Amino acid sequence: MHNTALGAIPAPCEGEPVAETVVDIVNAHRAGRMDPVETVKRAYARLRAYGDPALFITVRDEDEAIAEARALVAAGGGADKPLFGVPVAVKDNIDVAGLPTTAACPAFAYTPAADATAVARLRAAGAIVIGKTNLDQFATGLVGVRSPYGTPRNPHDAALVPGGSSSGSAVAVAAGIVPLALGTDTAGSGRVPAGLNNIVGLKPSLGLVPATGVVPACRSLDTISVFALTTDDAHVGLAAMAGVDAADPFSRAFAPSLPGPLPTGLRVAVPCRSDRLFFGDARAEAAYEAALRLLSDLGATVVEIDMTPFYETARLLYEGPWVAERFAAVGEFMASHRDAVHPVTSEIVLAGSRPTAVDTFRALYRLAALRGQARDALARVDILMVPTAPAAYTVAAVEADPIRLNSHLGTYTNFVNLLDMAGLAVPAAIAPDGTPFGVTLLATAGRDGALASLGRVLHAKTGLPLGATGVPHPDLRALAPGPAEGEFVLAAVGAHLTGLPLNHELTSLGGRYLETTRTAPDYRLFALAGTTPPKPGLLRVAAGSGGRIELELWALRAEAFGRFVAAVPPPLSIGNAVLADGRVVKCFLVEAEAVAGGRDITASGGWRAFLAKAS
Amino acid sequence: MHNTALGAIPAPCEGEPVAETVVDIVNAHRAGRMDPVETVKRAYARLRAYGDPALFITVRDEDEAIAEARALVAAGGGADKPLFGVPVAVKDNIDVAGLPTTAACPAFAYTPAADATAVARLRAAGAIVIGKTNLDQFATGLVGVRSPYGTPRNPHDAALVPGGSSSGSAVAVAAGIVPLALGTDTAGSGRVPAGLNNIVGLKPSLGLVPATGVVPACRSLDTISVFALTTDDAHVGLAAMAGVDAADPFSRAFAPSLPGPLPTGLRVAVPCRSDRLFFGDARAEAAYEAALRLLSDLGATVVEIDMTPFYETARLLYEGPWVAERFAAVGEFMASHRDAVHPVTSEIVLAGSRPTAVDTFRALYRLAALRGQARDALARVDILMVPTAPAAYTVAAVEADPIRLNSHLGTYTNFVNLLDMAGLAVPAAIAPDGTPFGVTLLATAGRDGALASLGRVLHAKTGLPLGATGVPHPDLRALAPGPAEGEFVLAAVGAHLTGLPLNHELTSLGGRYLETTRTAPDYRLFALAGTTPPKPGLLRVAAGSGGRIELELWALRAEAFGRFVAAVPPPLSIGNAVLADGRVVKCFLVEAEAVAGGRDITASGGWRAFLAKAS
Repeated sequence: MHNTALGAIPAPCEGEPVAETVVDIVNAHRAGRMDPVETVKRAYARLRAYGDPALFITVRDEDEAIAEARALVAAGGGADKPLFGVPVAVKDNIDVAGLPTTAACPAFAYTPAADATAVARLRAAGAIVIGKTNLDQFATGLVGVRSPYGTPRNPHDAALVPGGSSSGSAVAVAAGIVPLALGTDTAGSGRVPAGLNNIVGLKPSLGLVPATGVVPACRSLDTISVFALTTDDAHVGLAAMAGVDAADPFSRAFAPSLPGPLPTGLRVAVPCRSDRLFFGDARAEAAYEAALRLLSDLGATVVEIDMTPFYETARLLYEGPWVAERFAAVGEFMASHRDAVHPVTSEIVLAGSRPTAVDTFRALYRLAALRGQARDALARVDILMVPTAPAAYTVAAVEADPIRLNSHLGTYTNFVNLLDMAGLAVPAAIAPDGTPFGVTLLATAGRDGALASLGRVLHAKTGLPLGATGVPHPDLRALAPGPAEGEFVLAAVGAHLTGLPLNHELTSLGGRYLETTRTAPDYRLFALAGTTPPKPGLLRVAAGSGGRIELELWALRAEAFGRFVAAVPPPLSIGNAVLADGRVVKCFLVEAEAVAGGRDITASGGWRAFLAKAS
Repeated sequence: MHNTALGAIPAPCEGEPVAETVVDIVNAHRAGRMDPVETVKRAYARLRAYGDPALFITVRDEDEAIAEARALVAAGGGADKPLFGVPVAVKDNIDVAGLPTTAACPAFAYTPAADATAVARLRAAGAIVIGKTNLDQFATGLVGVRSPYGTPRNPHDAALVPGGSSSGSAVAVAAGIVPLALGTDTAGSGRVPAGLNNIVGLKPSLGLVPATGVVPACRSLDTISVFALTTDDAHVGLAAMAGVDAADPFSRAFAPSLPGPLPTGLRVAVPCRSDRLFFGDARAEAAYEAALRLLSDLGATVVEIDMTPFYETARLLYEGPWVAERFAAVGEFMASHRDAVHPVTSEIVLAGSRPTAVDTFRALYRLAALRGQARDALARVDILMVPTAPAAYTVAAVEADPIRLNSHLGTYTNFVNLLDMAGLAVPAAIAPDGTPFGVTLLATAGRDGALASLGRVLHAKTGLPLGATGVPHPDLRALAPGPAEGEFVLAAVGAHLTGLPLNHELTSLGGRYLETTRTAPDYRLFALAGTTPPKPGLLRVAAGSGGRIELELWALRAEAFGRFVAAVPPPLSIGNAVLADGRVVKCFLVEAEAVAGGRDITASGGWRAFLAKAS
């Protein structure tokens, strides 16, 4: 194995229950198989064992954390607490009441009286904060070496940068100290360190998690992010923090978007060959190729796209006016504390005073056009998959060339928040020399759950151990099937299937893929004449005299369902279909009169199979 | 009457059909009672009779317009053209192919080869452009006096300013020259001139009408606006222009939002007493009080609100960085053509080079917070009603104090686009001295139809004549029966008809009865076997081979519609039915397979008639 540094992580003792993930830990706590007090103690023990003074800026008093765990246990079994007794680490630009917030700048430090909204919600869900982690100063950087508190040691290879800016939080998860940690992400700070540490980095849709109590980087682009060992864990953390906060005017209301089963027929965009940038890192290039093969193995269709609008957007972030947001946040402080600030950080942020309002509006116009181009580029796919970072660099290399290599690391991350996309970084490979490589899944804001549906399966399929713990990825448990409260199930039969031309009508209404299944053998499927895009029609016939037609079940909330049905054109209608297992679901049906000119394609078994044969 | 200036508007000749509104003109053209060629000629005749050289910057060649009308007539009766033969005027900062676009600055003029998208859509709907109207130079101003082409004469009182910046378009409508004209609106340019001319000024939701082909003022806040004599007319114009344009990255997709019946229980916010600003204009103050009484007479509940967030937003527009958008659009031109630009305009626009990117982002943060406060202030009301302008000023007064009085005029308009609201200015009163006064209805973006539902009724209730034409407001005709904003139409066929056992399922979901009508003769009705309560099924058959089946149209909101559809049991479904008049509506249909055991009751003409005979 690849674990030169793993020796520093204590293996579980003989007979000690192995529960490394949030899901396993919470289940064990609820079932009484593990005690939250012991879990908290173990986090501190592992932190001491890791022995890296650069990892945390402030470690919370252990007795205080233990007392909190004890109180939590005394209050009940945690059935209503999805993070019951989970130790968490918090990046030190996010407020935790009573602990200093430094943003990795001692002269800037203050001690907040209140938790950041996201932290308060984590705690309400049963999480226990054990400390504040190191970061690139003022969250400016993707490397993890720009901090007066030192560089957190990458547990995979001490020579490698840990990635930043959320360096300490990523390492704390990868090293198995905590199973969940908060970062922030403006230009990639929640994804690049995940990639370089072989863990999951969930960058939620902008505004999904409130930013109240966060030291701003670029306020219009900042989001709190989640590091975890698995996608499912990250989503437990996200669910605890998501939701509008009146105190944060940038927080937004999104329909719930949860991980579901992997849709069939998924279409995943990837950069065309000439747009794949690795800056000479052959390990990364090979690993990305391997990830593409995994995607195909999962049944996804890989679609190469032109990355021009994405890369132009990325350049806008640092060449355009957004750096003025950093100046707006901390520029005056820096100007009056020049000696207290990292020279690279200072150089970047103080440049933010130069652009004009005219520059800003022109950049906003350009961005609006680029958003349109990016939307068009992704119109016929479900997800975009890029490398998380194009290369992995050593600390020595970054110190020799700090700005250029930092900038390379943001190749696949810088455009994401400007384009208002959700992101999920998952592990993809570990090179023979032990260097981790990750991929990031991207989709339009609000589709966090769709990213997770692919990310969890892709991660599991890599066969990689979790972080640097050596623990194997747990078996993917079945997700709770079926619609959530307030949702209705609709069966898609034709052009609304995943990856087909009208699927966006479901996803744009917040539709959530549930499963692929078949009808009872009482239906015939017809290719309808003269429909654009081509559509089939499902017609009920005498019981047993038809075929078992493949369909996809989608969940929609009532209003979305109403809007969807209202837009269904003739000769289609929304009626009821009987499934092979006897369930009755809302389903597209066709008027019998309309199949006259159509071709009976029942024998194909479904529209997707018919299209595959026809092409 | 109040019409000192009305003598200049030619009265219809004896026997000449009186059709002043878009709706009446189009109906008359379609019915052959009026000839589009004569309508175009009359517009030119009235323009000459009005005799104001400051009204149009470019009058289109009359023969060319007549030829266009002739070609339109030759192409058919206009059934598919909602503006069939309607003469329109276009503000001279919006491109019309072949006519110069000056933005009221001769040195800036260019002659576009293509129509602005909105103009092209108006023409496709049958409108005929007769010329380009005067404006405050570069659409900068709310007064109408900042143009080298002179000040259009206010037809109500030549001493009064016409309002701006869309001065010429507003006067052309008020004077009865054209029934429809385009303006633009960034800070009130589509509303203030409507208020000062006793006409309707519809400022659509941002992005609803594409801005492709418009000389930008503040690109992120600009919208094309519509002037008309009635709200219904303005909405006919809006409907022709609305819809996404790929060439305009700021264009947005909105669900259709049409005027409907006045909802009962409407709650209308108004500024609390201390926030009502009239700058000493007692006429305006009295007129606003009268408008509030009208509102109560209509059954609306009036709710006083604190206007602080709205007024702070208004100040942001001119004290903040948005003026840099004007510089971004025309600043370089102005800097190199100082002598060619109005001194007030130049002073305003050139100041746009001063704010920084930091100023801009800070203003955007403040705006985000103000948007939240405004949303909270309006959370429990449907609409906000403010004066359109707080006062009316004379040309002489504005010339003596050009910036301050202009700024007063924007009191109730400047905040609207920054807060992403839709607006509708409607006439409210004419003071004893002949000065018009209007109110503006405001709501969140996308609710244009809700504003119209109140605006049309409020306007009619004022009893005011249309514009300065002396023509009375037409009786409000029943709206084409149909859904209000956010509602969907469902046709009930059987047990859901009024008075039948399942009708409560519609009413308990807030369903609203619209009308009773019949299908096209393409359907057969079956009494289904074994249904409780007894139900019929409607089945489409070969065209013309069925009967015209009676049904009831009901309106349901999206969520209710979704819940209703979700509960429809097999063998019924919700598909589409073609009505006798060609409309297509959502309708109960039956699966063909299920009518096997049923009785064909098509001859009865409908379920209610069948039950009557059966009993």
